[in-house]
Amino acid sequence: MAVMLEIIKESKRTKARLGRLHTPHGTVDTPAFMPVGTQATVKAMTPEELKEIGAQIILSNTYHLFLRPGHELVAEAGGLHKFMHWDRPILTDSGGFQVFSLGDLRKITEEGVQFRSHLDGSSLFLGPEQAMEIQMALGSDIAMAFDECTPYPSSYEYAKSSMERTTRWAERCLKSQTRQDQAVFGIVQGGMYRDLREQSARDLSSLNFPGYAVGGLSVGEPKHMMYEVLDYTVPLLPAGKPRYLMGVGSPDCLIEGVMRGIDMFDCVLPTRIARNGTVMTSRGKLVIRNAEHARDMGPLDPQCDCYACRNYSRAYIRHLVKADEILGLRLTTIHNLYFLLQLMAEIRTAIEQDSLPEFRQEFFARYGYEP
Amino acid sequence: MAVMLEIIKESKRTKARLGRLHTPHGTVDTPAFMPVGTQATVKAMTPEELKEIGAQIILSNTYHLFLRPGHELVAEAGGLHKFMHWDRPILTDSGGFQVFSLGDLRKITEEGVQFRSHLDGSSLFLGPEQAMEIQMALGSDIAMAFDECTPYPSSYEYAKSSMERTTRWAERCLKSQTRQDQAVFGIVQGGMYRDLREQSARDLSSLNFPGYAVGGLSVGEPKHMMYEVLDYTVPLLPAGKPRYLMGVGSPDCLIEGVMRGIDMFDCVLPTRIARNGTVMTSRGKLVIRNAEHARDMGPLDPQCDCYACRNYSRAYIRHLVKADEILGLRLTTIHNLYFLLQLMAEIRTAIEQDSLPEFRQEFFARYGYEP
Repeated sequence: MAVMLEIIKESKRTKARLGRLHTPHGTVDTPAFMPVGTQATVKAMTPEELKEIGAQIILSNTYHLFLRPGHELVAEAGGLHKFMHWDRPILTDSGGFQVFSLGDLRKITEEGVQFRSHLDGSSLFLGPEQAMEIQMALGSDIAMAFDECTPYPSSYEYAKSSMERTTRWAERCLKSQTRQDQAVFGIVQGGMYRDLREQSARDLSSLNFPGYAVGGLSVGEPKHMMYEVLDYTVPLLPAGKPRYLMGVGSPDCLIEGVMRGIDMFDCVLPTRIARNGTVMTSRGKLVIRNAEHARDMGPLDPQCDCYACRNYSRAYIRHLVKADEILGLRLTTIHNLYFLLQLMAEIRTAIEQDSLPEFRQEFFARYGYEP
Repeated sequence: MAVMLEIIKESKRTKARLGRLHTPHGTVDTPAFMPVGTQATVKAMTPEELKEIGAQIILSNTYHLFLRPGHELVAEAGGLHKFMHWDRPILTDSGGFQVFSLGDLRKITEEGVQFRSHLDGSSLFLGPEQAMEIQMALGSDIAMAFDECTPYPSSYEYAKSSMERTTRWAERCLKSQTRQDQAVFGIVQGGMYRDLREQSARDLSSLNFPGYAVGGLSVGEPKHMMYEVLDYTVPLLPAGKPRYLMGVGSPDCLIEGVMRGIDMFDCVLPTRIARNGTVMTSRGKLVIRNAEHARDMGPLDPQCDCYACRNYSRAYIRHLVKADEILGLRLTTIHNLYFLLQLMAEIRTAIEQDSLPEFRQEFFARYGYEP
């Protein structure tokens, strides 16, 4: 099997697990956060910088690479790892999320999705077989099955038929993926309906994927609803296999997800808000553009020892951000990713020490969340 | 004296000199190219990256820092070196070039220049005393006298009165600058008129500056005209002091300038064209966006061992540039600055070996210049 989760410790007081995810490009300590490199680059970062802040795995996007530069070109370059100079594990999404987001520009059939490129309007098709073909060409360690991320809210009928189609597509993905050095993860859907989620989890589990994602969450629903879905869905997934909560990356959701048995996360949040000038600190979020930081010669976060916090003041970073200087968003990006990767390391330590509930309480109080 | 040029070797066959410029923040091998960090950052680069590619001194802009974040704030931060985390020498320009470029937004008097900020339209004043006050607050190793960069073309009368005013301003700059750890360089003007250039060089030399710049060149005149001005101006400058040719950074002009006795250069060219996707290589310029590079798995320049060329293909960098990814312009910026800094190192070696004319010929043939 291309990808295997070694479980090192299971929390007695929560559903959290400490593990090591073995992949063809190395091992990832779990629970893990995956920085997003949409277009074969984690925005503003080099691979060396990603390693320096402790990233062990990144995510890249099938839809974007399919459109530009094209998966054949990436294959010619020797695969995505070589193309982008990243020798650690890569997970690729299936492109489903992006093509479904195109609204009027796409048409769904049992076969797949006909859509228009957001770059040049050309007519393209993506279905389970195509998504697998592209991901095999990219050569990611983990490929995701082609699914529909059910919108929120959705009627019971729509959520059901969409989920059932996603399951049929998952089967086709498994059949068409032939690389021995790549694992395909199935994606649980079903909207916010318990019986649909349970059916999806059971049906996909019977297909014996090497890993499972919970999709269709963090799509606009209240957080308590996401946690409820996790509460009843995760226990139905095979215990020995990795579980990935898609598109989730705010600190509170990472902690809550881990406590419900999630091993992997990804999100554009830390890098996107960084480019906007918002940074995460041990005391909550901070908008560096604000005038209060103009003469502040202290670091973004006194508790942080990332490159930005070791060497630059808030006053300087604010100046860079206001002057639209690239170094400004490089520093905020480094800081935010480091913050989340450090948080994951602290979460792993807390699981090791079986003190995750206390860690959660302390973190929430410090960060300013309602626990 | 804050800044001193130690001349190690003088070329017998040209006017080139090999030297070491001693400053309060360390020593610079000359002839030297200074990357430009307009807003207290060399665009897209960290100080560590600048050091890695061999930058020993950078230039920053008084006008921009005066407007944002303000020199008082930089002084509060402990000076420009500390503010921007760069512990090697810094040269600041005087702001004259920028305020004179404002056209209708400025009014010149003997006192100085009244102008409107390009950021918020506020009315501001910059004269010799203000330019010195700002540069003292910034704490650069080398401050430039406040001058008018005479436009090209200019009438003899305008060039003469402008040059004479620049000389009077130079005297006021010397008088008002009081920091012992900062050197002020005078700037020779006089347009393209030989007697005016000679008068300017003589008058400024009599003021005994620790260094001299030749300004008002590379402003639209044909290159042979610039070389002629250097031919008759440079020999009138004190032999033992550093000579700086302002705003010049194309490879041919660097070589021609060094052969005429110039020790220092600065230019936004390498970083600006990099952000546009144009790179300099041992075989001339290359526009990375061009379709011919789409499937080229070789480096930007096979002769280059910069970080970009060691680790990335033209195909990948082209993809990044076309996708507007920050890493794209980071890589082209690193490459172009490395190219020019390496060129300066090769020029220094050629002076050492007294083979600069042969180096020039070989370089021009390879790069595709008419020698």
